Amino acid sequence: MSGTADGLGRLSLNQETIRQWSLPELVAGCVRAGVPGVGLWRAPVREYGVEAAARLVRDAGLTVTSLCRGGFFTASDPAERDRALADNRAAIEEAATLGTGTLVLVSGGLPAGSRDLRGARERIADALGELGPYAERCGVRLAIEPLHPMYAADRCVVSTLAQALALAERFPSGQVGVVVDTYHLWWDDTVAGQIARAGAGDRIAAFQLADWVTPLPEGVLLGRGQLGDGTVDLRWFREQVEAAGYDGPAEVEIFNPALWARDGAEVLAEVAERYRAHVL
Amino acid sequence: MSGTADGLGRLSLNQETIRQWSLPELVAGCVRAGVPGVGLWRAPVREYGVEAAARLVRDAGLTVTSLCRGGFFTASDPAERDRALADNRAAIEEAATLGTGTLVLVSGGLPAGSRDLRGARERIADALGELGPYAERCGVRLAIEPLHPMYAADRCVVSTLAQALALAERFPSGQVGVVVDTYHLWWDDTVAGQIARAGAGDRIAAFQLADWVTPLPEGVLLGRGQLGDGTVDLRWFREQVEAAGYDGPAEVEIFNPALWARDGAEVLAEVAERYRAHVL
Repeated sequence: MSGTADGLGRLSLNQETIRQWSLPELVAGCVRAGVPGVGLWRAPVREYGVEAAARLVRDAGLTVTSLCRGGFFTASDPAERDRALADNRAAIEEAATLGTGTLVLVSGGLPAGSRDLRGARERIADALGELGPYAERCGVRLAIEPLHPMYAADRCVVSTLAQALALAERFPSGQVGVVVDTYHLWWDDTVAGQIARAGAGDRIAAFQLADWVTPLPEGVLLGRGQLGDGTVDLRWFREQVEAAGYDGPAEVEIFNPALWARDGAEVLAEVAERYRAHVL
Repeated sequence: MSGTADGLGRLSLNQETIRQWSLPELVAGCVRAGVPGVGLWRAPVREYGVEAAARLVRDAGLTVTSLCRGGFFTASDPAERDRALADNRAAIEEAATLGTGTLVLVSGGLPAGSRDLRGARERIADALGELGPYAERCGVRLAIEPLHPMYAADRCVVSTLAQALALAERFPSGQVGVVVDTYHLWWDDTVAGQIARAGAGDRIAAFQLADWVTPLPEGVLLGRGQLGDGTVDLRWFREQVEAAGYDGPAEVEIFNPALWARDGAEVLAEVAERYRAHVL
């Protein structure tokens, strides 16, 4: 049964959803399950070897829908900033090698001791300006991911889709796009209009799915919910991005130790089932 | 030394900041520290007796700057909704007895199993319409508190000041206002404009202060930071509300077990010191 035939033609599995799998296990598991796309992370890819990973995925007939992640652009210290830019150039090259056109950015939080959100956001714009042309030459688009406002201090000062778009729109759409991630954006009553704006400007570089469940765990990083377990109207989001003209992959990215503790194939089967029930 | 003379003339201590204090300890402690206002909570006030609490505070020369809290308007079950309305009428009466014109509302999250944010928000508007005239007759204003988006599922579907204002503005400003709380709003790049809008419409019913510190604790309820310990530009917020025409109290409301474990007078002295250093 082909992925397309059973409705999974646009489904992508972000690697961190089943982090208990090695890269070869991930590739084999997705092929077995008829899931045609994978979202990869830099650390496991580098550990396996970027070229080897690219070959592994390509030979299996899978598509790399995104690479996570570049970013962390908000340092005010010049040396730290230079290191971040160099690291992002490497990430762009890795994305190109993997054959994905999307490098997801987690833009960075406030530097230690700083309360200057506006300044941090401007440093992100500066970095996008420096990296955008190189990314485009490599066939990679920088995808600003607005993170939930609960991460504004320590991970990402870009908290809404409107903010991400205001940043992206300073640059050509071939250089900088945005990520629409249901987990980060579900609460925002302006998000439908912003998705339409993103689509009209050809800015939707990725569509990611996770559900919102409570209570949040300490540190609030690993509390994402399996599709259908929480409060997000996932189907509504899919309809919004499609109405905005997006026809790319729907990438499931759930960070949840309860999923990591289970058999990977079982988790992927559940993801596919939930995707059919709550997204399609 | 008078509160005014040492810069504390607008400072109010929300009772939950030093919850280890009984109501008489709270009142005595504020008088000793020259803090002229207190924000009270319904449960300890009812336990002490509403009339007795009103007398205690009044006789000490303190002002009750707000009562927390009404709200929880989002139930779709009719009986539950009727109970919420009755409970809010009682809260309005308690606020009136205490002599405060501000009843803070935590509007409510999604009902169990629901994903309908828009519907929940409309039920809040319905409840405001039912309660507003009664509140006004009692000399009490309903103050919608937008809560941080991390509470959207389980506590409050009103997540931004813009949303709170859109709700409030459906009703007369004497009936419904908003709370500007730094903890909930600090991340929002549109907040300056929304504070100006709130001031222009005479909607700022309360100004509350807490700092944002990470990592967030499990459940994310009790992780608020002492003033100056976190990432919020508190002085900037005070300047914004003042520029918008607000000249009411600045109420410090910090939920943090580390503060509750300490000597109350020491905590209050620290609050006053931090208020001078980071807010004034």
